[in-house]
Amino acid sequence: MPQLSQKGKDLPSSPIRKLIKYADQAKANGVSILHLNIGQPDIAAPKEALDAVYQSNLDLLPYGTSQGTLRYRKKLCAYYAQHQIVVDPENILVTTGASEALTFCLNAICDVGDEIIIPEPFYANYNGFAKAANVEVVPIISDFDNGFALPSPREFQTKITPKTKAVLICNPNNPTGYVYSKKEIEALGNLAIENDLFLIVDEVYREFIYTESRHYSVLANSRWKEHAIMIDSVSKRYSLCGARVGCIVTRNEELIQTILKFAHLRLSPPTLALIASEAALDAPKSYLEKVVAEYSKRRYVLKNALEKIPGVKVSDPMGALFCIVQLPVENAEVFSKFLLTDFSDERETVMLAPASGFYASTGYGKNEVRIAFILESSKLLRAVAILEKALVAYSKS
Amino acid sequence: MPQLSQKGKDLPSSPIRKLIKYADQAKANGVSILHLNIGQPDIAAPKEALDAVYQSNLDLLPYGTSQGTLRYRKKLCAYYAQHQIVVDPENILVTTGASEALTFCLNAICDVGDEIIIPEPFYANYNGFAKAANVEVVPIISDFDNGFALPSPREFQTKITPKTKAVLICNPNNPTGYVYSKKEIEALGNLAIENDLFLIVDEVYREFIYTESRHYSVLANSRWKEHAIMIDSVSKRYSLCGARVGCIVTRNEELIQTILKFAHLRLSPPTLALIASEAALDAPKSYLEKVVAEYSKRRYVLKNALEKIPGVKVSDPMGALFCIVQLPVENAEVFSKFLLTDFSDERETVMLAPASGFYASTGYGKNEVRIAFILESSKLLRAVAILEKALVAYSKS
Repeated sequence: MPQLSQKGKDLPSSPIRKLIKYADQAKANGVSILHLNIGQPDIAAPKEALDAVYQSNLDLLPYGTSQGTLRYRKKLCAYYAQHQIVVDPENILVTTGASEALTFCLNAICDVGDEIIIPEPFYANYNGFAKAANVEVVPIISDFDNGFALPSPREFQTKITPKTKAVLICNPNNPTGYVYSKKEIEALGNLAIENDLFLIVDEVYREFIYTESRHYSVLANSRWKEHAIMIDSVSKRYSLCGARVGCIVTRNEELIQTILKFAHLRLSPPTLALIASEAALDAPKSYLEKVVAEYSKRRYVLKNALEKIPGVKVSDPMGALFCIVQLPVENAEVFSKFLLTDFSDERETVMLAPASGFYASTGYGKNEVRIAFILESSKLLRAVAILEKALVAYSKS
Repeated sequence: MPQLSQKGKDLPSSPIRKLIKYADQAKANGVSILHLNIGQPDIAAPKEALDAVYQSNLDLLPYGTSQGTLRYRKKLCAYYAQHQIVVDPENILVTTGASEALTFCLNAICDVGDEIIIPEPFYANYNGFAKAANVEVVPIISDFDNGFALPSPREFQTKITPKTKAVLICNPNNPTGYVYSKKEIEALGNLAIENDLFLIVDEVYREFIYTESRHYSVLANSRWKEHAIMIDSVSKRYSLCGARVGCIVTRNEELIQTILKFAHLRLSPPTLALIASEAALDAPKSYLEKVVAEYSKRRYVLKNALEKIPGVKVSDPMGALFCIVQLPVENAEVFSKFLLTDFSDERETVMLAPASGFYASTGYGKNEVRIAFILESSKLLRAVAILEKALVAYSKS
């Protein structure tokens, strides 16, 4: 048999993938599962979005433009302007989800063996995107007890080598829920300028902020404009995860032109999803206000309930849809498996995302899980009740 | 300014991309353009496909499964069975277009600097996908005067090195229209077995055959089943280019599992497009029969008209939607530019795809263009008439 690539063999599977087969078995055994592990919204998309698709009356689906239509990019500019981000349509390249956006960026700025620095814990797939592009992730620990604030610029400086091409963060952060301050973004901007690095910020959760903190975009300051790359997506903002529409925004013209060459190869983002994404921008302001208010309620319900469980510590999720939770167990991966294979309460159990999958350094996050506050409040309360019972059962097992 | 990657800088732009700005200028000057350069169908998609989307009544778009739903993969199996391709749902992985399918395959089987052999001329983006994956394309010339038949196995053998991982062909072929015979596919199957290589066949034009030749799929013979990878797409078959739905089909289990790791990273193919693609399979058999009959007519009209132009030679397009045409000019790139910048007939002109973009070896295809027979017959006739006048004008210029 012909050999597969070493890259393919080495590509990491996240711990959550290993749990899926146990979840499938549990379901086959008639146990229903409350998913605290994933970020699949249950809130309806703006009516405008899917109505536009249903009324599009296309009789075939032509290729779109590789960069995204000028009309959609103009509408995106108007949307960004509401967030103090002043960009032109030529600063935007529409992609097939934030996943493709990040892959394009890595390919356009990194050669084989180049490095990107990411504070950990981080969205597990960042590691996969990097490995797939033959890029090394250099992690810097951000600390649970410090609320996952940005590590100091000095710590970043110690990780920079001649192979370092970029710093990547997610703001608001998945999986920690941390929202980086203006001061923290400025520190990274300065670091990028001083060390001639790109600063890539995944801002897909821009609106999802539940405290007084204001979101400070990497594009809000043009001092590091050649360095700044913003990644965006319609997935969570408009409950359009399956659309697979995102974008790259940068004022670095040469970068956009280079990324466009990669974009030409895959021809265009999906046509129907673009129609929905463009129309979503016509939703009234109240749509997102209601969505954020609802998630804010769920966040409060989850955090409040979790904190009542003895031995459980919750990181304060200032934004996004997740928090990191320390459990009174030695190994959260083993406990997460236990929940699916050895426990149920009235034929119900809970699925968690072990946080070890969000760390590139080994040995970190062993007693931590990521919990999403995406389910509706009653389900969140039930899930936490199950979790509490399971912790008791587990401690006796 | 931070440096971009060498890979990004080196990524080839095809000659057609260079022409686009001239086409835009011509349009701005009020000249309309008949596009013989692209593969954008004008025939309606099966009514079932888009109706299913319009009637889907989703109120949000959830992520799909990374491999594609079991239901869609089962329906694909039934479709393939009609083409003497017997596969199981687990042999199929649904992708975001054939583009993603090919990128996944290259990543799963090739490491940095590995090589794939492709008979040229070939679909220009194959080169780009390879470069983006740090893979080298090793071309083998297939000859215009030999109708672009497969080069002999001996010629392939001379190109095989320890770094060779796969042979890639497109059957029916874009850009030549050649349909490989059973004997030719068997020769490649043997080559793959003897040299422990993968054999990747892009079969997106499976039904588009206009002669007595029957399509012989790489999956029709299970003797080389560990080696065979078939790439597919709904784009041309159902006029759903903008859907961005394709798939990888292989009986090599380890390969599918490895590709699935790459597929997990990008979460899922686009949900709405999957609904259309699945429903397209419900179209009556007569749908594709009519489509192929229509393209067959256009092919005849185009070939017949082109062959009447003095000095023009046409490769016989047995299948797909294209033919390679030799023009009585020294440099078809220069002539293609001339058509857009220095010529029009009653404010109309023609856009061609210079064939040099389909060769990896330099100096080949200089007097050749690829012409698509996708426009309706009357437009094809008008385009050829313009081309004839332009050749006269060019010879005098």
